[in-house]
Amino acid sequence: MGNSIMSENSKPQSKVGILGGGQLARMLALKGHELGLHVQILCESPHDPAAQVVPQTTIGKLNDASTLKGFISQVDVVTFESEFLDSELLKSCSEHSRAQVLPSPEMMGLLQDRLTQKNFLIEHKIPTAKFLAASSAEELEQACRFFNFKCVIKKRRFGYDGYGTFVVKNSSHKFDFTELARDPNGFIVEEYIPFQRELAAQFVRSQNGDMITFPLVETLQKDSRCFWVKGPIRHRQFSRIEKLCRTALRKSNYVGVIAFELFERKGELVVNEIAPRVHNSAHHSLDSCHLDQFTAHLLAVTGRRLKSPVLKAPGFAMLNLLGESNNRPSWDIRSPVHLHWYGKHDNRLGRKMGHINSVSTSAEKALKIVLNAKKEFKL
Amino acid sequence: MGNSIMSENSKPQSKVGILGGGQLARMLALKGHELGLHVQILCESPHDPAAQVVPQTTIGKLNDASTLKGFISQVDVVTFESEFLDSELLKSCSEHSRAQVLPSPEMMGLLQDRLTQKNFLIEHKIPTAKFLAASSAEELEQACRFFNFKCVIKKRRFGYDGYGTFVVKNSSHKFDFTELARDPNGFIVEEYIPFQRELAAQFVRSQNGDMITFPLVETLQKDSRCFWVKGPIRHRQFSRIEKLCRTALRKSNYVGVIAFELFERKGELVVNEIAPRVHNSAHHSLDSCHLDQFTAHLLAVTGRRLKSPVLKAPGFAMLNLLGESNNRPSWDIRSPVHLHWYGKHDNRLGRKMGHINSVSTSAEKALKIVLNAKKEFKL
Repeated sequence: MGNSIMSENSKPQSKVGILGGGQLARMLALKGHELGLHVQILCESPHDPAAQVVPQTTIGKLNDASTLKGFISQVDVVTFESEFLDSELLKSCSEHSRAQVLPSPEMMGLLQDRLTQKNFLIEHKIPTAKFLAASSAEELEQACRFFNFKCVIKKRRFGYDGYGTFVVKNSSHKFDFTELARDPNGFIVEEYIPFQRELAAQFVRSQNGDMITFPLVETLQKDSRCFWVKGPIRHRQFSRIEKLCRTALRKSNYVGVIAFELFERKGELVVNEIAPRVHNSAHHSLDSCHLDQFTAHLLAVTGRRLKSPVLKAPGFAMLNLLGESNNRPSWDIRSPVHLHWYGKHDNRLGRKMGHINSVSTSAEKALKIVLNAKKEFKL
Repeated sequence: MGNSIMSENSKPQSKVGILGGGQLARMLALKGHELGLHVQILCESPHDPAAQVVPQTTIGKLNDASTLKGFISQVDVVTFESEFLDSELLKSCSEHSRAQVLPSPEMMGLLQDRLTQKNFLIEHKIPTAKFLAASSAEELEQACRFFNFKCVIKKRRFGYDGYGTFVVKNSSHKFDFTELARDPNGFIVEEYIPFQRELAAQFVRSQNGDMITFPLVETLQKDSRCFWVKGPIRHRQFSRIEKLCRTALRKSNYVGVIAFELFERKGELVVNEIAPRVHNSAHHSLDSCHLDQFTAHLLAVTGRRLKSPVLKAPGFAMLNLLGESNNRPSWDIRSPVHLHWYGKHDNRLGRKMGHINSVSTSAEKALKIVLNAKKEFKL
């Protein structure tokens, strides 16, 4: 071990600012505490999940230049929980600051737009579904015709958890393309992929160049929301995809956690979407690995070393606790699960209120444990 | 599952006040966040470890009646990280409040005094070293003579980590009994136990009566401070001790985590000391079990269910990171360990600055991992 690295780590890269106050920011803050970092939050309400777990929160708008500048000036490094921020504003607000924003606003801007995200995948030869760009009703219809009305229309911007995504199954499907085309940011239209299952992979790259891969997982979505995750999954094609992704991240000097959502179609893997942030599909790592994604992200953005996560048990699973009513939730845990509650101010149908993790001798057994444990929660 | 329990859990037992701002309070607060509890801290400085991880801290003295009353009135339940508080004051300050103090001030008072603690052990037939009470220089000398000058003198009050403990090895050992006897609280003098190793067991009892046992561990002390812990340890006598301890806790209506430090002498187990709080010997549970001692303590004092902790791997170990200088510590983790840093304002020789945990296929292997990882920290 070189002394240079020890002394670098004792430098003040210890004040971390997080843009956003949701559950991802909250879990980053909690893991920041364990590392002894000083975590500050910028969010809109003192009731936000992350604001409840730190002593210092700035209340303000994430798209207000003077708020952003003030916040950035207080910390050593800035990161975020959502890629749907104004990346240009973020770039200009951090330009003359000693604090870097990581992942970079450039990468945020590139990946928050589904068209430039697709181009990024293609540029780096990462397999993905065929697509066409469209910005008018005519182009939308042409693109659907091109894919024989078996396709997926996605808004270029601000789509997540199924919002902004429209599946076209056949030509009798009546879409009001004119109405849809009012979105000023345009669309991509992708071939529909009849996948057997969905998988997800997460990578982390440090400022110092270290890079690690989290175990490949299978994810199940219900109503376009992640319902459960299990792993580790072995797939004969994964090492090829992994290599391509890691090369892309190195070439683009990406820093932080990044998640690749994958479809498996007849044994082939294709990338569906990328999220440049900590990701629901790796929440299991809080309890299944010696290194979790939140800790890894913080190590990465503060330029520290990364070593590959080691599994604690042969299998793991995660289940999201989604709101089922407007009632106050309650729980009574009798199963061997870890609860991660987000402290959201209100319960709502479909809202991510928390999640539970388990480990066992296999992914299947771990999944059974969390599915069973779900009955212990009134949501 | 009865609805009664669900509705009980949805009742407001969710605001937890913690007396003290050190690392034990900090780890309780962090696990409180994961459970979605609202944790408040009462401590003397905003720089204290626990104050750094919660949005709401009351700064004040833990032995000031009006401070205590004000703090207690804000929460549903109060707990503490040190048993060396004024238990009478705590009792009177909480008497007319809806918030209970748990463990109870009575149990705190009983166990913070080594004489009444010894009597508690004897009353419940729990094996412990022979002892005599002493309150004057004459009685101290008589007691040492009784044990043939192979004994341990312990102050009845405020002893921890070796403070207040004096080992007498032979009659030529020159003790100034007159000087020592100035302590107004008196002493116990115990037979010296030439132990082969030290073990520790922790139990948790909930307000609802549920009780669990954490895996038995071996601990190594250096300079009277815990250096490492490994486990799980099997011992043919443990189930007998466990039964006695659990009966004692049930009969005394104890609530919360309690740690029993044990000596092994020629295969026999005897209890050395009891600490009525979360304990250094169970810090491993943060990463080795599906349920950690901090979460278990919070579930217990809020009256929730407890289920026995399930190990995630066959072996585990914990190593304390003790200050070795007054310099600012630094680290560069390359080993598969979990870091728990306490965020103390100053580094000092021997001070507990944090700890690291690991799991592996055996206790020995896990211990090797943490001992090796220690080199990655400059303390």
